Amino acid sequence: MPSRSLGTARMEGMSDGVFGFAMTLLVVDISVHPPGTPLQQLLRAWPSYLAYLVSFLTVGAAWIFHVELTDTLTRTDPIFLRINLLTLLVVVFLPFPTRLVADAPHSAAGERVAVTVYGLTLLAIRLMGLALRAYSQRENLRAPHTDGAQPSTRRHPTVVVIGYVLAILIGLAYPIVAVNLYLAIAVFLIVPFRDVGRVLLRRP
Amino acid sequence: MPSRSLGTARMEGMSDGVFGFAMTLLVVDISVHPPGTPLQQLLRAWPSYLAYLVSFLTVGAAWIFHVELTDTLTRTDPIFLRINLLTLLVVVFLPFPTRLVADAPHSAAGERVAVTVYGLTLLAIRLMGLALRAYSQRENLRAPHTDGAQPSTRRHPTVVVIGYVLAILIGLAYPIVAVNLYLAIAVFLIVPFRDVGRVLLRRP
Amino acid sequence: MPSRSLGTARMEGMSDGVFGFAMTLLVVDISVHPPGTPLQQLLRAWPSYLAYLVSFLTVGAAWIFHVELTDTLTRTDPIFLRINLLTLLVVVFLPFPTRLVADAPHSAAGERVAVTVYGLTLLAIRLMGLALRAYSQRENLRAPHTDGAQPSTRRHPTVVVIGYVLAILIGLAYPIVAVNLYLAIAVFLIVPFRDVGRVLLRRP
Amino acid sequence: MPSRSLGTARMEGMSDGVFGFAMTLLVVDISVHPPGTPLQQLLRAWPSYLAYLVSFLTVGAAWIFHVELTDTLTRTDPIFLRINLLTLLVVVFLPFPTRLVADAPHSAAGERVAVTVYGLTLLAIRLMGLALRAYSQRENLRAPHTDGAQPSTRRHPTVVVIGYVLAILIGLAYPIVAVNLYLAIAVFLIVPFRDVGRVLLRRP
Repeated sequence: MPSRSLGTARMEGMSDGVFGFAMTLLVVDISVHPPGTPLQQLLRAWPSYLAYLVSFLTVGAAWIFHVELTDTLTRTDPIFLRINLLTLLVVVFLPFPTRLVADAPHSAAGERVAVTVYGLTLLAIRLMGLALRAYSQRENLRAPHTDGAQPSTRRHPTVVVIGYVLAILIGLAYPIVAVNLYLAIAVFLIVPFRDVGRVLLRRP
Repeated sequence: MPSRSLGTARMEGMSDGVFGFAMTLLVVDISVHPPGTPLQQLLRAWPSYLAYLVSFLTVGAAWIFHVELTDTLTRTDPIFLRINLLTLLVVVFLPFPTRLVADAPHSAAGERVAVTVYGLTLLAIRLMGLALRAYSQRENLRAPHTDGAQPSTRRHPTVVVIGYVLAILIGLAYPIVAVNLYLAIAVFLIVPFRDVGRVLLRRP
Repeated sequence: MPSRSLGTARMEGMSDGVFGFAMTLLVVDISVHPPGTPLQQLLRAWPSYLAYLVSFLTVGAAWIFHVELTDTLTRTDPIFLRINLLTLLVVVFLPFPTRLVADAPHSAAGERVAVTVYGLTLLAIRLMGLALRAYSQRENLRAPHTDGAQPSTRRHPTVVVIGYVLAILIGLAYPIVAVNLYLAIAVFLIVPFRDVGRVLLRRP
Repeated sequence: MPSRSLGTARMEGMSDGVFGFAMTLLVVDISVHPPGTPLQQLLRAWPSYLAYLVSFLTVGAAWIFHVELTDTLTRTDPIFLRINLLTLLVVVFLPFPTRLVADAPHSAAGERVAVTVYGLTLLAIRLMGLALRAYSQRENLRAPHTDGAQPSTRRHPTVVVIGYVLAILIGLAYPIVAVNLYLAIAVFLIVPFRDVGRVLLRRP
């Protein structure tokens, strides 16, 4: 058996394309609208920029999780390939709720619906990543002694899932707070705190 | 002769890109419209979600079929490369009928036309996959003893083609039923029943 | 010196992505509009389908030309990389004139302008491909004895360029005729006649 | 330790995809509008073409910078991967200010805001490239003796940054002049003057 089957290479190639394209599509929906001076219009579009940032960082964190997971695989199997497709299904869906949040009408009901759908999609991306990892462990698809060796996959998954659930519940009352919590979770997922600390403490 | 020519690698790379883009583009057209409360608008867009799901799973199944086929190729030739381009032509076209179905006016005639064009495109994607496989067998492009070794390609092609034809005919009278049949075929194509059974029956 | 530098691999990867994405973007602009029954609307959009087909086949032919050219490269250099970027600039531009043709107002002037811009872009794609090949020959970037060994690059470039120029001139008077000539050139470029003849004459 | 980790390959693959998509997305927003004859409409859209050209060349220059930088890496680390993601965040954002410039209302205020946001984004792309390079040098990610060996990375970064800052300041008074300066900087970044001189002076 080869150490990395061709199917793994193509799964990674297709996944990279889809992750990258989902990131790029997010910016298609950013736009400015009258009324107001051009500068006012630009500043008033801040929910678009925030939603773009949160979505980009969440997809980026999911991509890093995916790279760190598949790097440890010695092989793949038909079911892993399908779970991966479902992961991409959720990632590709993200530009839609991102647009909902960016365009949310200035009514409490509209914001609440948009932010809740958005949070559920972010949570689903995370859950699919955990499902990929759980399946790969259950079926021994990974090289031995690699679990827990990667910074991102090392973080305890329950913390992040609980964080998302709490943020979604808070969003039912305070949508803006929830979006900022989604941002905080994305930053928490993407920043390699230990490495940053090591680099900052050491002098070049 | 090298075991895998560079042209094969680039054909796979470009195909992966096109499959991935086609999946991602599907979500561009999902949107909500007044009238109604925000939640009503979101729920009323269910034909968009259904069409997105069917198209994503069908393209996913076509991608898996493509990976499993090209994994067995020892070489490619100029005609295979062109049949592959025609396959991509049909895959790339899919977002258009998907949008037709998602936006279908609530009239019997509009739904019937949209669902029929959609079904014909899904059928064409399948037929192009079968043409790729038939040509590769006719010209001995595949490694010996590999035919039938892959779960998806193993299923008898006639069953799926007949299924699509029946669904298209049924759609002339009952468009909604046809879309659900397209979904059933996509699920049938993508789920590796034997592997799922094996994993579920065995205890980890 | 390695036989294929990393820069070559990334140039090919990025080019494949851009070719594939340009193909996929073409379908975004296909749409149907009132008035008319749904079927009439669908049939009346035929200029969109024709423009999509011509553009897809032309980009497909350019991609095959690109694969066959870069397959023969033993190395690349900074100028080749930039000519390649200019080639992609023209390929990426194609969806715009494709949309012009698809949406051309039903006036002689509108069609004439759209079809001429379209033809000039198709011609530019071909000329950039020839520039890539000419530069690679001038700078000895290609492996010896490979020139002329590939079906598509073998065709005499002057014939195709003259064909485009004639079609563009004819389009000033008869736009529809020009689009059909563009289609004929794309088919001529993409069909490997010798291989097709060989396969058809031989019994399996 | 392998000379090039798999994470590097996927970082390059995803980056190539994102650079390519960002280039391609730029053309989605080019369109013509009434009033005027078709030819007048086409010519009046020149700000779109100019913005498309500047953005494409700037992304192209950033891609070449990225290729030349990552070609010299012997390894990558978690922080480099995140700085790379931030670079892509800025590159992917570019289609938005490009659209602002292309659609700028014909008022002094509107043009000034659009051109300033555009210039800041172009500057940010350059700064992120420099940050990637600075981090790779600080952490010894690069092979020895490779710094300064590449044409583009060799140019003194301060000159280009000062050029962008000056162009942005000039744009506050004369937006059109600034866009032409952005074009000049992109051309300066992308043209390998030494190689062009060598090729032109030598006879084939």
